[in-house]
Amino acid sequence: MRTLIRGGRVVTAADVYDGDVLIDGESVVATGTGLDGADEVIDATGCLVLPGLVDNHTHLSMPFGGTVSCDDYDTGTAAAAAGGTTCIVDFAIQTDGSLLEGLRQWQGRAEGAAHIDYGFHLAVTDASESALAEMEQAVAEGVTSFKCFMAYKGAIMVTDDQLLSVLQQAGRTGGLVMVHAENGDAVDLYQREAIAAGDTAPRFHATTRPPEVEGEATGRAIRLAHWAGQPLFVVHVTCEEAVREIQAARDRGEPVFGETCIQYLFLTVDELARPGFEGAKYVCSPPLREARHRDILYAALRQGALQGISTDHCPFNFEGQKELGKDDFRLIPNGMPVIEFRLSLLYDRAVRTGKLSLTELVRLTSAEPARIFGLAPRKGTIAPGADADIVIFDPEKPLAISAATHHMNIDYDPFEGWEVRGAPRTVLARGDVVVADGEVVSKPGRGRYVKRALFDPAATVPALATV
Amino acid sequence: MRTLIRGGRVVTAADVYDGDVLIDGESVVATGTGLDGADEVIDATGCLVLPGLVDNHTHLSMPFGGTVSCDDYDTGTAAAAAGGTTCIVDFAIQTDGSLLEGLRQWQGRAEGAAHIDYGFHLAVTDASESALAEMEQAVAEGVTSFKCFMAYKGAIMVTDDQLLSVLQQAGRTGGLVMVHAENGDAVDLYQREAIAAGDTAPRFHATTRPPEVEGEATGRAIRLAHWAGQPLFVVHVTCEEAVREIQAARDRGEPVFGETCIQYLFLTVDELARPGFEGAKYVCSPPLREARHRDILYAALRQGALQGISTDHCPFNFEGQKELGKDDFRLIPNGMPVIEFRLSLLYDRAVRTGKLSLTELVRLTSAEPARIFGLAPRKGTIAPGADADIVIFDPEKPLAISAATHHMNIDYDPFEGWEVRGAPRTVLARGDVVVADGEVVSKPGRGRYVKRALFDPAATVPALATV
Amino acid sequence: MRTLIRGGRVVTAADVYDGDVLIDGESVVATGTGLDGADEVIDATGCLVLPGLVDNHTHLSMPFGGTVSCDDYDTGTAAAAAGGTTCIVDFAIQTDGSLLEGLRQWQGRAEGAAHIDYGFHLAVTDASESALAEMEQAVAEGVTSFKCFMAYKGAIMVTDDQLLSVLQQAGRTGGLVMVHAENGDAVDLYQREAIAAGDTAPRFHATTRPPEVEGEATGRAIRLAHWAGQPLFVVHVTCEEAVREIQAARDRGEPVFGETCIQYLFLTVDELARPGFEGAKYVCSPPLREARHRDILYAALRQGALQGISTDHCPFNFEGQKELGKDDFRLIPNGMPVIEFRLSLLYDRAVRTGKLSLTELVRLTSAEPARIFGLAPRKGTIAPGADADIVIFDPEKPLAISAATHHMNIDYDPFEGWEVRGAPRTVLARGDVVVADGEVVSKPGRGRYVKRALFDPAATVPALATV
Amino acid sequence: MRTLIRGGRVVTAADVYDGDVLIDGESVVATGTGLDGADEVIDATGCLVLPGLVDNHTHLSMPFGGTVSCDDYDTGTAAAAAGGTTCIVDFAIQTDGSLLEGLRQWQGRAEGAAHIDYGFHLAVTDASESALAEMEQAVAEGVTSFKCFMAYKGAIMVTDDQLLSVLQQAGRTGGLVMVHAENGDAVDLYQREAIAAGDTAPRFHATTRPPEVEGEATGRAIRLAHWAGQPLFVVHVTCEEAVREIQAARDRGEPVFGETCIQYLFLTVDELARPGFEGAKYVCSPPLREARHRDILYAALRQGALQGISTDHCPFNFEGQKELGKDDFRLIPNGMPVIEFRLSLLYDRAVRTGKLSLTELVRLTSAEPARIFGLAPRKGTIAPGADADIVIFDPEKPLAISAATHHMNIDYDPFEGWEVRGAPRTVLARGDVVVADGEVVSKPGRGRYVKRALFDPAATVPALATV
Repeated sequence: MRTLIRGGRVVTAADVYDGDVLIDGESVVATGTGLDGADEVIDATGCLVLPGLVDNHTHLSMPFGGTVSCDDYDTGTAAAAAGGTTCIVDFAIQTDGSLLEGLRQWQGRAEGAAHIDYGFHLAVTDASESALAEMEQAVAEGVTSFKCFMAYKGAIMVTDDQLLSVLQQAGRTGGLVMVHAENGDAVDLYQREAIAAGDTAPRFHATTRPPEVEGEATGRAIRLAHWAGQPLFVVHVTCEEAVREIQAARDRGEPVFGETCIQYLFLTVDELARPGFEGAKYVCSPPLREARHRDILYAALRQGALQGISTDHCPFNFEGQKELGKDDFRLIPNGMPVIEFRLSLLYDRAVRTGKLSLTELVRLTSAEPARIFGLAPRKGTIAPGADADIVIFDPEKPLAISAATHHMNIDYDPFEGWEVRGAPRTVLARGDVVVADGEVVSKPGRGRYVKRALFDPAATVPALATV
Repeated sequence: MRTLIRGGRVVTAADVYDGDVLIDGESVVATGTGLDGADEVIDATGCLVLPGLVDNHTHLSMPFGGTVSCDDYDTGTAAAAAGGTTCIVDFAIQTDGSLLEGLRQWQGRAEGAAHIDYGFHLAVTDASESALAEMEQAVAEGVTSFKCFMAYKGAIMVTDDQLLSVLQQAGRTGGLVMVHAENGDAVDLYQREAIAAGDTAPRFHATTRPPEVEGEATGRAIRLAHWAGQPLFVVHVTCEEAVREIQAARDRGEPVFGETCIQYLFLTVDELARPGFEGAKYVCSPPLREARHRDILYAALRQGALQGISTDHCPFNFEGQKELGKDDFRLIPNGMPVIEFRLSLLYDRAVRTGKLSLTELVRLTSAEPARIFGLAPRKGTIAPGADADIVIFDPEKPLAISAATHHMNIDYDPFEGWEVRGAPRTVLARGDVVVADGEVVSKPGRGRYVKRALFDPAATVPALATV
Repeated sequence: MRTLIRGGRVVTAADVYDGDVLIDGESVVATGTGLDGADEVIDATGCLVLPGLVDNHTHLSMPFGGTVSCDDYDTGTAAAAAGGTTCIVDFAIQTDGSLLEGLRQWQGRAEGAAHIDYGFHLAVTDASESALAEMEQAVAEGVTSFKCFMAYKGAIMVTDDQLLSVLQQAGRTGGLVMVHAENGDAVDLYQREAIAAGDTAPRFHATTRPPEVEGEATGRAIRLAHWAGQPLFVVHVTCEEAVREIQAARDRGEPVFGETCIQYLFLTVDELARPGFEGAKYVCSPPLREARHRDILYAALRQGALQGISTDHCPFNFEGQKELGKDDFRLIPNGMPVIEFRLSLLYDRAVRTGKLSLTELVRLTSAEPARIFGLAPRKGTIAPGADADIVIFDPEKPLAISAATHHMNIDYDPFEGWEVRGAPRTVLARGDVVVADGEVVSKPGRGRYVKRALFDPAATVPALATV
Repeated sequence: MRTLIRGGRVVTAADVYDGDVLIDGESVVATGTGLDGADEVIDATGCLVLPGLVDNHTHLSMPFGGTVSCDDYDTGTAAAAAGGTTCIVDFAIQTDGSLLEGLRQWQGRAEGAAHIDYGFHLAVTDASESALAEMEQAVAEGVTSFKCFMAYKGAIMVTDDQLLSVLQQAGRTGGLVMVHAENGDAVDLYQREAIAAGDTAPRFHATTRPPEVEGEATGRAIRLAHWAGQPLFVVHVTCEEAVREIQAARDRGEPVFGETCIQYLFLTVDELARPGFEGAKYVCSPPLREARHRDILYAALRQGALQGISTDHCPFNFEGQKELGKDDFRLIPNGMPVIEFRLSLLYDRAVRTGKLSLTELVRLTSAEPARIFGLAPRKGTIAPGADADIVIFDPEKPLAISAATHHMNIDYDPFEGWEVRGAPRTVLARGDVVVADGEVVSKPGRGRYVKRALFDPAATVPALATV
């Protein structure tokens, strides 16, 4: 079947042009004007035609502190699709000491449930010899990135020698190492001190994880990666302190990369001081920051020090889940529901305001994540041969964000009451219309597992055979 | 007329895909597979299909030290086209105190002579009130960038207050300020000392312009631009010292940009010490550098601190021109003939060796120069609506560089005897085949003046009308 | 004659101890307890016994903008003595093109007039070949430091090649090069713009010389000195921007030194906005700065990035002199009367408040200036063999600063109305009591010219003969 | 009893002068010329008269890896005295979980044994609540500095939260925190990898503790100290990487201090590759470094980034002790015998060669250590009121270093066979001649425990009572 998206303004990481997009089956076959021969035509007049977004940082059905994040692969990916995301890379966690066991469990949850394509990272929480050995098989199966946590002491935190071991092993097996960079020792001490002082409310979640502990850990991870001769990807960068370390490394020519998440661009630490226990809705790690960091994040995104804007979607219901920490902020499950509105928020509050250009939007939410996480050239662009993952985005469509109407399976929305302008009208995933007129029309299970390629910092795309 | 380029591998700054390119008249109308309806088909099997290169740094018929650079708009642009360059931005120089007079003279030389499209920068060599006032008219005519020289004392060098004035005026009229960054005072002193010491040979051209005088001037220009609240473009960056200043500025969030030129990537200062007077062939400013700087330039290009690779093409015959400095290196006309082989050299010696990817090649030679110098979205990419400026590049075609065969109007070639693999087979400019089977087939005068848009550091491409 | 200063607390750059100081003739012969054999005893009970201060930055009878600074060698050195300063190094200025002619004129004014010992720097305002040649003779006569102005365009400003020449020549003749670091080109432009905009009041003196023009020039001077392989002394450092450049250079191991002056520690730019023309009293260059810079200056003094606190004493009467700039701030003579109260101000407002320790006070006002400017080991300390230049300082003596009572020959005092605690009771210079009970009792002409040694950054004091 | 040291050249951190020193009992009472009334006269003609050196970093009778360092308080302090050191601060180690128990044990060993005065630091190896609580009592007893090890994983290494706790507690109790800065996790991993690879020889001690692990840990400790709002003293700094971190902190105005040790100035890592097992003699931590680091250490010492040169004396016999690591470098006891020849080595190889001046020598080995570790004003200078700890140093006396003749109780000397010029002739400690004609003439037990004052970064000496 051939579908023609007609009359829109097409955007890639490099170009903006008025033209049509012709799809044959699962793939884009042509772009331009005067294309015909389609079985079906979708009118995109007045709309932007964007590559479907990649979300390389999600936690669906994620166990945390005795509970489980409340979006599963069905609800989570449906919400993603509703917002214009057509591929996610979710974090499978080492389970019972085994990476592959973790991978199997996550694959089991995703299969038959996902609406859109998905891949996995593997979180290495105990760098035992056997776990390290499993990295090779993981890579063979298309899991080409591994994450370590430098925080969450006593739970999933690794020590520096463990992080070094993972980096060294990635040098042998391939695979990009990612870090959650906060000094978990310092956080642990600050938390104990806060509780001892009776400071149990949500806002102390932020005061016990100040920007400097993120900056220090970021710098340390960068050094360890350099010692191991490996590239590094720093997840959810939130603050000036961390940005400066990444900039310095890149200036030295080191292959260090990073992302921020939308909550750090649009919300501030003030949310944690909301009356009552409301602040718990905004508890994530690293925490939300003071407003001053946002301009620095935007500059880093524009100048290329950071390569992506993801979500770190990790939703927990306010009732029954966030409430676990009512008397002790340490027991509040960490994470926020943010998978759905990334595109609308960025368009309305960053592109429209001149903070990011359209091509930058695509670069940061599609092209670069696809490149870095081995999804290119099939994901992250609109070009002949690419998967037909496409968002037809109406820049004028009003959107009132509310838990009453959002697609995520959670009882609150951190952007409740925000009114933005611009929303997806139609979303295609590998040629299928998965969102029509803003409604999810796909079925659980249509999403497929994506075997990801290894990251090659020096190459965006496969070279010519003759080269 | 409709032309189809069939069967090649298309490369843009974002994508690499196998597909066809359909041209209608002067513009690309579609890319993809299965395109038809063409009047003519060009077979690109086994070839890369690249956007025609932009060369934003050329000096054709340029007066310097009592002589004139030996490529005029006919020979210079023919050589450019032969190598895959389809648009240049040449430097018009303030003449008889007037910017517009300079512009008229350069326009007069170009009109009826150029094979490919061309625009102009204006070099402000005396920032008088009347010259500053003329910037507004220049911008209105599509000359949207102005260059100052911080070197060439006693000739075209400006003082810091003049440079500041130009920056301030650009803040009022629009226009991107560019600098040739070397401390001309220091160079002048070092030159006088060298001559006094009897050091008259070509290699003393380099020793009297060491990297640190470039680094200092680069940092100074960046500061002046920051004081004036203006962006800055640093031309022909050659060394670590200058790169560090640019990186630091960008890390602070300042809109500072820069380029290097191919001679700094492929040649070293050792060439200036060739026997006899041969070193004069390699005299340009800033001078060629020691090999250690090259890795730093490549890292800066990859990481985004530098945005372009141009040529600073400024050819002077060895006989009769370079020879003017036989007894005093200060009288050697500064410049080298490099407009022709940029693409082949970069492909063979940088892409093939893994120093740059294919998309980086296009970004640095086409997309970014086009964006920064107001030529996008018509130049710098292959996309519907763009000018059909296209290089069909055969990556296997052998090329032996020699003055005996090159298209430039000069009696030597700095890469004489180099053998590279990869050369343009066919070059199209606004739909016209200007190079066929490696031979220039266009006529003088087919190139048109391009009115350039203002640079907007925050926007890659025009935003939607509805925004 | 032998004099014993008994019962005080002696302070040097290294030590604080309770003890007596025995003087024989012009020199200290012993310190300790139980000393006797004195012809005369001065009771110092309850007092600090400090080395007489060195002021290495004064401008007595200094021509500036058609007028002459209003303290001559009689009044200026009397006021210095009254405040505890026992040696100055004044700036002789190149005159009629000749360094030595300038030196002769200044020597002529000082001889028979000075109350305390004095030396000279030479300001090189035109680095002609003949002027450079004179540096050798100047050094031979004990003038071992040379200053260049990077500001005052059209008057005494030197270009970079001139500054480089002076640095290079100092490498041959010996001699420490000092710079007044402001980008004079930028200041000139800003001044013209201000006047054109009708901004003629004193406060525009400061807005047209912002901190960044000092920072830039400081960094540039440091680079030039490094190119010449010479040490550098930056005079009157006022701001963070300049401090950062000096710190960076020192961290790289470069012999860069600097000072600030008391007005930058105790006054702010707000003074220039006083009602009417009162702000003119506070016009000096570089200008007074915002308060935020002061903590950075103190940190730099404590950490060793800056080595001295001098005065840049350059007084002009409000009536008849400052008034020259009533309608154009550019015509206000630059400078302030500050030679007198340095010690009392620093003691009360820096030592008493914990910003500086007692030994730091001595280090910064006596020991380091003496070392750097070739006056050690005779000046700058209290030790056997040193000149008996000593201040007996009563830390409890109240001092109300006022033009009505100060010793300087000027009609205003920038600290008018300030009440401080702590003042010299007795001051000895080479064994002579020059100030008794706070009153100057010496005669003009008792001060002698001091032939200064060359600065050796690697040696604090002369090495043992046997070494 | 009154002793007069006559005719020498006296050196302090500020002054060098020819004069006599008069001692009454335990203290200096006067310096100068023409002093008399002495019971005894020591002729110092041709000699330097220096303050006795302070060694703030020694490990006597120190348990390490199942053995004990082979100098006890008798032999170790005798050797120290022989070389010109008159006061040490030794490291007592937390024992059976208790700081005070450690202190008691060390005091027990020192009492009745030491030839010279001594104080203690306390090493906190497990920052338990009870240990932290003991810091208050330790400070009350004059133990005013606490050290944490960031290396020696599985033994005495602390985690970051422990180090932070110690810093915070020091903020409450007073006390300067010191760190051994190496990333112990990384070292542990590298060691395991080396052994697994069969790399068991002494030189792998160095390759598994590269400079970057010291640099990283130094930067981390500095950050933790800043978070706790506390000053920090970095012990045994060896390399550029660590120096850069300290410089950056000081430039930011942070009270960070550090020392190096003489072995890092005079020996290189090449020693570890000596034939056979000889390299074990040079095993200490951090390890000896490549020669390139030495110039950077000297520059840091001169510019003030580092404040001291100590020894980290920690001797283990080659036979029976170093040999424990014959088959596994990890079992080689860490440490070298260096307490004895610090002064002679520094004089001959640093002062004589112009790397350090005489006053710098005194500043770095006496005055600053005394100031920082609460021994001033009684130790570290020659001034009225100070302890009569004095070295009469003959700059021409030849010294051939050899285990056959040295005073340390150990079977080898790392400087074996070195011939230097310059050695102590006579050493006085609190007025007692402890070394005469180069021979130790004191008795065990004459040395006394020194209760040290708290470090006050802002004050060198006690302020006047009236202040």
